[in-house]
Amino acid sequence: MTTPTRQDALRLDRDDPIGWLRNEFVIDDPELIYLDGNSLGRLPRRTEAALGRLIRDEWGNDLIAGWDRWVDLPRSVGELLAREFLGAEQGEVVVADSTSVNLYRLSSAALGARPDRRVVLAVAEEFPTDRYILEGLAADRGLEVRFLESDPVEGLGVGRLADALRAAEDAGGVAVVVLSHLNYRSGALESMPEMTAEVHAAGALMVWDCSHSIGSVPIDLGASGADLAVGCTYKYMNGGPGAPAFLYVRRSLQGTLSQPVWGWFGQRDQFAMGPRYDPVDDIGRFLVGTPPVPGLVGIRESASLLAEAGIGALRAKGIALTELAITLADDWLGPHGFMVGSPRDSARRGSHVSLRHPDAWQISQAARAAKVVGDFRAPDSLRLGFAPAYTRFVDVWDALDRLRAVVATGDHLRYDGALGRVT
Amino acid sequence: MTTPTRQDALRLDRDDPIGWLRNEFVIDDPELIYLDGNSLGRLPRRTEAALGRLIRDEWGNDLIAGWDRWVDLPRSVGELLAREFLGAEQGEVVVADSTSVNLYRLSSAALGARPDRRVVLAVAEEFPTDRYILEGLAADRGLEVRFLESDPVEGLGVGRLADALRAAEDAGGVAVVVLSHLNYRSGALESMPEMTAEVHAAGALMVWDCSHSIGSVPIDLGASGADLAVGCTYKYMNGGPGAPAFLYVRRSLQGTLSQPVWGWFGQRDQFAMGPRYDPVDDIGRFLVGTPPVPGLVGIRESASLLAEAGIGALRAKGIALTELAITLADDWLGPHGFMVGSPRDSARRGSHVSLRHPDAWQISQAARAAKVVGDFRAPDSLRLGFAPAYTRFVDVWDALDRLRAVVATGDHLRYDGALGRVT
Repeated sequence: MTTPTRQDALRLDRDDPIGWLRNEFVIDDPELIYLDGNSLGRLPRRTEAALGRLIRDEWGNDLIAGWDRWVDLPRSVGELLAREFLGAEQGEVVVADSTSVNLYRLSSAALGARPDRRVVLAVAEEFPTDRYILEGLAADRGLEVRFLESDPVEGLGVGRLADALRAAEDAGGVAVVVLSHLNYRSGALESMPEMTAEVHAAGALMVWDCSHSIGSVPIDLGASGADLAVGCTYKYMNGGPGAPAFLYVRRSLQGTLSQPVWGWFGQRDQFAMGPRYDPVDDIGRFLVGTPPVPGLVGIRESASLLAEAGIGALRAKGIALTELAITLADDWLGPHGFMVGSPRDSARRGSHVSLRHPDAWQISQAARAAKVVGDFRAPDSLRLGFAPAYTRFVDVWDALDRLRAVVATGDHLRYDGALGRVT
Repeated sequence: MTTPTRQDALRLDRDDPIGWLRNEFVIDDPELIYLDGNSLGRLPRRTEAALGRLIRDEWGNDLIAGWDRWVDLPRSVGELLAREFLGAEQGEVVVADSTSVNLYRLSSAALGARPDRRVVLAVAEEFPTDRYILEGLAADRGLEVRFLESDPVEGLGVGRLADALRAAEDAGGVAVVVLSHLNYRSGALESMPEMTAEVHAAGALMVWDCSHSIGSVPIDLGASGADLAVGCTYKYMNGGPGAPAFLYVRRSLQGTLSQPVWGWFGQRDQFAMGPRYDPVDDIGRFLVGTPPVPGLVGIRESASLLAEAGIGALRAKGIALTELAITLADDWLGPHGFMVGSPRDSARRGSHVSLRHPDAWQISQAARAAKVVGDFRAPDSLRLGFAPAYTRFVDVWDALDRLRAVVATGDHLRYDGALGRVT
């Protein structure tokens, strides 16, 4: 197969059914190729407008009366995510607090529902905050967290999970399994229905972290049987820096699970300010404090925009973009010592691609100087996120071409010293 | 003493050394008298500008590189609050998460430091979320929360607290006391140094909730001996709807207290993404997840503005405003069945005044129709917040005059039915 040309890439853009989406985003510098939308998504134009109205008109002029509308945002934005991106039902998703705080609350609730079991399973390559949250919960309760080894490219897989569930039986059994739907480094996608079924067969509860998949890969929490889920909204969902996270609780569990942070936004008849905590009967009982309104508005705007394209079309384009990237990486970067650190089967891969190289940090710096913004993930990954909403095929071609030039000329070798801070 | 005239009020405004501050806020409707800044503070003009830049330029254009600056906001905004409003030292305050979540985390840490004690003390009239959070913590740990009766106008006071500390000795001793510095309903101010001393004498830890005092009353956490504190930033601090809360941990306790939510923003060398939770040695260990950037920028802008006036000048004006309000309430509203529900000693009162009346809800509705926005707090309080940054003396005069007209004409009697939702 011949290597795709820049003309091929331009043709793919012309034929792209969701090519119009890019124009809905603020893009100041046409030379900059932004491949970090999996870390901080771009600003949709409608979000800029909506936040302007929120601040100037709603806060500035409506003042306290703004809360008549704002108070429902955690639920209404949750419904939007549930319907368009999560395969969840009405009343199963709310948006509030950070991913870390939500993971703490839901994992704590899940552990409370399996009081006689002693083991929590997670992946050693899991995103750090998930691991730390579980460590803290386990330390407080005298439980054991087993961090499972996964394949650095292909992920954990059902087989390793099943083995670990069985192996834990002697140690008191598994209470809760926490897994990322999509690995933050390699982009490997785990099978939500198959793994959830294994976890349930072992009598444990399943918590999915969808931070790196929501907005790029269709998620069907309902059909998968997932018990609980959390996820980030400022990556592919473009909610803005520090936008709050979603949480999902299967309806059948809402009456039995108790989350530990009992706040007034979960209270029945909140403004009666009654003497004792008496949470509502539905997903609202998983709310705690006053929600961050600008972040919620940011999510609402971007989610409504992405919903116009549809997650199916976004997914199809994400696959096509990453296929092109991998083809070019093999042809152009392989000879310079790069290895593709992401699954080659597109059904098992999200919308970002990891390229491994011993000089990955230096290359990431030189790439930025060449206006290709990806990110470095220790120890040796250059992570390139191809957000389907605003990344063109020609961007993929140009980015890989610039990377080729960097390593061909050795431009990256002028960088050294301590690792830079990369978010 | 004769009742102050409108001319008197206008003269006070002319002589007001911080009268210039009002012009720094967005005020669209000059007829509207906004007395709910103790619930949601007004929008400073510089905040509107800064949020515009944050969204359009920093998020829209700097993209991921924005985090180079944003990542320090929880600490730098914390330092600003510490220095200008809280009497705390560098490295004792950070801003992140909601007041409820912060209260949960700090109270949990405090309980962990007193594992042999069985009782938590709080006030029965405490703001609801504080009570619910403590109920949840106690339920999880098999502890007892004792909700102390306080005077509905004057607050708890040192004597009642000392009695309760002694009374709890037989029941296993008090682990933690959680108190609001300023009561959300009556505006009663508790004595932070005296009460903290009593709590320490009993061997317990003291957690202050400064939600209703920060920005209106000088706070000296350092000199008071307080162990821990939390507080809201969207009331007198004008951080915007749902802006994150601050938390304070006395430096000497930072090494020994362990908060339960172990997140990656507390990690040493965060982006090394190391295998185990290894928190930094300082206040940063009380950070958890990705912070909500727009809220932090809102707090930074308003805090820098208020700092130009100084908390001393804000406090002096707050006292003068509430003195005028109480004088007019006595003269004009007393005959219509109102009782002042706030301390008459200004040293014991914050910047809001509670007026109690059996028809308080109806009156609050009629007042809104007359463009006087206060709020109703069940069961019988009309709460009027006189935010010193933008409330004029003539606003106080006009507001009380309009309330007088409402009750004199019985205009409020056309409202009835179920209580409206008021935030």
